[in-house]
Amino acid sequence: MIIKLKNSTTPEQKQQLISWAEGLGVSVCTVVGAVDTLLGFIGDTSHIDEEQLEAMDFVAAVQRIQAPYKKANRNFHPQDTVISVGGAAIGGRPPVVIAGPCSVESEEQICEVALAVKKAGANILRGGAFKPRTSPYAFQGLRQDGIKLLLEAKQVSGLPIVTEIMDISQLDLFNDVDIIQVGARNMQNFELLKELGKIRKPILLKRGLANTLEELLMSAEYIMSGGNEQVILCERGIRTFERSTRNTLDLSAIPVLKSLSHLPVIVDPSHATGKAHLVPPMSLAAIAAGADGLIIEVHNNPGRALCDGQQSLTPQAFAELKQSIDKVAAALC
Amino acid sequence: MIIKLKNSTTPEQKQQLISWAEGLGVSVCTVVGAVDTLLGFIGDTSHIDEEQLEAMDFVAAVQRIQAPYKKANRNFHPQDTVISVGGAAIGGRPPVVIAGPCSVESEEQICEVALAVKKAGANILRGGAFKPRTSPYAFQGLRQDGIKLLLEAKQVSGLPIVTEIMDISQLDLFNDVDIIQVGARNMQNFELLKELGKIRKPILLKRGLANTLEELLMSAEYIMSGGNEQVILCERGIRTFERSTRNTLDLSAIPVLKSLSHLPVIVDPSHATGKAHLVPPMSLAAIAAGADGLIIEVHNNPGRALCDGQQSLTPQAFAELKQSIDKVAAALC
Amino acid sequence: MIIKLKNSTTPEQKQQLISWAEGLGVSVCTVVGAVDTLLGFIGDTSHIDEEQLEAMDFVAAVQRIQAPYKKANRNFHPQDTVISVGGAAIGGRPPVVIAGPCSVESEEQICEVALAVKKAGANILRGGAFKPRTSPYAFQGLRQDGIKLLLEAKQVSGLPIVTEIMDISQLDLFNDVDIIQVGARNMQNFELLKELGKIRKPILLKRGLANTLEELLMSAEYIMSGGNEQVILCERGIRTFERSTRNTLDLSAIPVLKSLSHLPVIVDPSHATGKAHLVPPMSLAAIAAGADGLIIEVHNNPGRALCDGQQSLTPQAFAELKQSIDKVAAALC
Amino acid sequence: MIIKLKNSTTPEQKQQLISWAEGLGVSVCTVVGAVDTLLGFIGDTSHIDEEQLEAMDFVAAVQRIQAPYKKANRNFHPQDTVISVGGAAIGGRPPVVIAGPCSVESEEQICEVALAVKKAGANILRGGAFKPRTSPYAFQGLRQDGIKLLLEAKQVSGLPIVTEIMDISQLDLFNDVDIIQVGARNMQNFELLKELGKIRKPILLKRGLANTLEELLMSAEYIMSGGNEQVILCERGIRTFERSTRNTLDLSAIPVLKSLSHLPVIVDPSHATGKAHLVPPMSLAAIAAGADGLIIEVHNNPGRALCDGQQSLTPQAFAELKQSIDKVAAALC
Repeated sequence: MIIKLKNSTTPEQKQQLISWAEGLGVSVCTVVGAVDTLLGFIGDTSHIDEEQLEAMDFVAAVQRIQAPYKKANRNFHPQDTVISVGGAAIGGRPPVVIAGPCSVESEEQICEVALAVKKAGANILRGGAFKPRTSPYAFQGLRQDGIKLLLEAKQVSGLPIVTEIMDISQLDLFNDVDIIQVGARNMQNFELLKELGKIRKPILLKRGLANTLEELLMSAEYIMSGGNEQVILCERGIRTFERSTRNTLDLSAIPVLKSLSHLPVIVDPSHATGKAHLVPPMSLAAIAAGADGLIIEVHNNPGRALCDGQQSLTPQAFAELKQSIDKVAAALC
Repeated sequence: MIIKLKNSTTPEQKQQLISWAEGLGVSVCTVVGAVDTLLGFIGDTSHIDEEQLEAMDFVAAVQRIQAPYKKANRNFHPQDTVISVGGAAIGGRPPVVIAGPCSVESEEQICEVALAVKKAGANILRGGAFKPRTSPYAFQGLRQDGIKLLLEAKQVSGLPIVTEIMDISQLDLFNDVDIIQVGARNMQNFELLKELGKIRKPILLKRGLANTLEELLMSAEYIMSGGNEQVILCERGIRTFERSTRNTLDLSAIPVLKSLSHLPVIVDPSHATGKAHLVPPMSLAAIAAGADGLIIEVHNNPGRALCDGQQSLTPQAFAELKQSIDKVAAALC
Repeated sequence: MIIKLKNSTTPEQKQQLISWAEGLGVSVCTVVGAVDTLLGFIGDTSHIDEEQLEAMDFVAAVQRIQAPYKKANRNFHPQDTVISVGGAAIGGRPPVVIAGPCSVESEEQICEVALAVKKAGANILRGGAFKPRTSPYAFQGLRQDGIKLLLEAKQVSGLPIVTEIMDISQLDLFNDVDIIQVGARNMQNFELLKELGKIRKPILLKRGLANTLEELLMSAEYIMSGGNEQVILCERGIRTFERSTRNTLDLSAIPVLKSLSHLPVIVDPSHATGKAHLVPPMSLAAIAAGADGLIIEVHNNPGRALCDGQQSLTPQAFAELKQSIDKVAAALC
Repeated sequence: MIIKLKNSTTPEQKQQLISWAEGLGVSVCTVVGAVDTLLGFIGDTSHIDEEQLEAMDFVAAVQRIQAPYKKANRNFHPQDTVISVGGAAIGGRPPVVIAGPCSVESEEQICEVALAVKKAGANILRGGAFKPRTSPYAFQGLRQDGIKLLLEAKQVSGLPIVTEIMDISQLDLFNDVDIIQVGARNMQNFELLKELGKIRKPILLKRGLANTLEELLMSAEYIMSGGNEQVILCERGIRTFERSTRNTLDLSAIPVLKSLSHLPVIVDPSHATGKAHLVPPMSLAAIAAGADGLIIEVHNNPGRALCDGQQSLTPQAFAELKQSIDKVAAALC
């Protein structure tokens, strides 16, 4: 961390700042130049609050050089984290495929889709019970009943399940859920993240619509600093000015996150693009970019889906895509 | 709502869609052109799910013409909503000024600031007890104790108070709080919004960092559709590529929101810019653009603030700004 | 095109608008609903100016349903356009690889890189002679001399060349250049585009940092409407709030552009990411997403490059990447 | 400028870098910490290319502390630059108002508007002769004839004129134009900027749709480093995800630019918002935020304007707005 002092800084102010920093366990080097005086804070600066420094009268600028996250940081944990769920190893090879409908709608629907995606080679079943919807007048999910139906589909198909939590108060319902998803809109619901840090179950953490990759890692750090180190990062598109896709899928997030962190990184091409015909090319691109997995919407009747049908694949289209995924993954070995 | 059908649509599919729409209470007009067939849905379409339509095989495009919100819509409620809190009328003239520290830190601090901003002419006291922080290692607020100190400052100064809620489970602590703030990161915490729709207390709803004004109004609609119609909208900057300010304050949000909705609109120049020297010009600009109020960070010792000190005004700078605000507001009468 | 009239519209105004539209060769259908009156303009509306309509007093809203471009539109030209340059077929299979340094620096440098990338399997040589730089104090390219050195490298290696034009006045220097590149910052330099429409040489048109895909196609339309239909579209990253990459590479642009247009689409992973270690994964991702080619920066000594060295591959790293590209391309056949 | 070296850096590499920097006239301080080695470059670093440094094998990170512009930098030129045009002082008090139609359409139109805005108190006449339009099929301006009509209106009204240049080849036509405008899409047309640096006439430089304020200042630096120091900066909205306005007007640009630079800053609320009803509130907001002037579209018949009529004020609405502007400006004295 580099601190640039204003020219008006007194020797007392400078000494006071140095003592304060040393009290926080970092060592301080001073560079006195012709124009500027710089202090270098060396050591573990993750507990130093940048904004507090910037607020000091005599500080002109602060620049952080080390990443502000530790548990999620590959520097302190060089090996890839691999999270085992059912038979699948998320973070290992080959990449894991999660598939299923946007919303759980009925027993028939979820079980039919579960069996179809299993047959096509999916490793994990997805399905929304609690649905975050922009409009209060839109379908909000089957909620508690949706979780029950998912658990039936788990039993029928043998696939582990992942589904989204929207509030701490719902946590008890997730006892038999294999992976708990935190949606993009809750990526910085810090109270929820803290609570999820107390349990011992994998968390699939989606990147927020306008969040940087550093912020995504800081949200992972919230969970991990509570003791739950099983976090799966998920890129699902960010908001830009482009209007031909629902969001802009940022696939460079994959190699960037893999270099900064040891956590697994998966991609959701369905929510990112919002259009079924874009899901296959973006799925293959994600695999080619090194993703540890995909989460894809599949519905047995997309035209009648209660939400997001426009972006769902039919089971047959998914089966074909799965074969292409396997080919691309094999080509990269 | 206009639906463009694909050329391949069969007469049966078209008839089926028309019947479905009529069953939802809208009337349907058909336009058969040389190339395209269009259906116009006329009436109240706020309950029709755009995405469900778009998912239908034979639908090429859907365009909504009516706004998807009703309770927040000025068309159905032409008069300005005015919310009375203490002696202040939010949504009326003159504009209301809310001021106080980012975080409540101690009894001395909050009471001193409360008395100072009251003397300078502020109408309402702000102060954070539950603090959403990007890093788990940063100060998270005094929480329950912070609320207590705020209530003391309320008694000492006579100012009503506004403070942020971060989770439904905290709601009981807010019984004596005058206005409950929903932060930018919780603008689409739909479970929280639903719960706040059940109470009868003004809600200050901040726009999310990457949310459109329509989405802000949809979040207001979540609260209002639950029966709580006292919603105050707050513009606090959106995320862009610009790096010289923390966020980009979107002041055109004021006249846009005032034309679309009857709800009061206030502006937070402190969080938007992140720098104290930008707060006065942006405060005056907000008033000139027609804002119903401002929410400004004031700290008795910004250089020692536990968070966001960099963007806080001293009580004296605030007092001077308040005088300028009054002058600009008077010039516009 | 759908026009929503205000309720206050008089029958005369409506009739006047209908006559005006019919005079422009479109037929008009009228939908009179309970609340709204809508006009549907059916036929070729690409010559109708949306903004002129919106400016009319009695028009409430205008929504375009047809794309505003024609020459670039796949609807009117279903077959893929394939552009032959040297032995390479841009727009066909396998994908084409363009490689070379950011800037031409010396005869030795450009010839050495040209031979190296040719050996590794590149189809076309790139190299900047005129360099758009943010700072007037940064290296601006060898300009006229750079073109000469590129032509030497073309002769030595047998590779066709592509290089950027920055102003109409430079056009005479490009007589022996095989493909003329229009940079991102000139994507909407309309006078330049018009001039390039008059020549008969392939144009590589880069997407601007903040331009939509529709705007990219409109810029292609500028060139094509002048008679030059050999346009190659290039995605090179858009500007977002994310700071870990120079720009955000929008790979969904590939399938979107390929569905809207018949023109070839290539990707520049070097400028998009700004970091050499991100170039291989994003190159492979682009190929997997269906790109018709790549344009990659290669320098024989990236650490001494006069610009953009940080994002350049060494010839050896490029040779390895080329093999992976071939594997992914083969896997997709 | 701070350079962080990789741990693997050899003493020779470090020495080589230090010698290179000293050769460029900066002095170097070295900080050897427990983990990192940092070099501080002290002195004038504006000629040092950040990217060249970052490309060096053994450099981990580079952070610039000084601004990369000099001529435009307030540090080296503390007094406000005031540019006199006709009787108006751009950069002084009171703020200057530029008004006129988007496009020059006819002698009658431009002279009528010129006289009307003069009567209402405008200082300078605007009008487009060369029009940058997204579509090749849209009206492209009267071009050479438009300039002639503007010069007539100048003579009739006595108002100085400002109009946009789109290409270097048009420069001869601008001999009698008082201020030459560089549009947003040409903000980084560096060849054009260099050419404008050679003349001695005020340049109104608009911020690009996706450009940072630092980049705007670097483009001003291009003009100024050529010897033409009369540059007027113009904020006209940036591109974001918000859809209710054409662009997002970034009014914090005013105080930010005024603190970083001595150049005058004006605002274009018409292009920023794209809607006439948003022009008055955003004009007043700009003045309250400290703008040195406004550039506003006024048309005698907005409903028939050949471009951008939707965002034009009538002469009467403009006259009323001018009175409000005067009141807000007076309130701030």
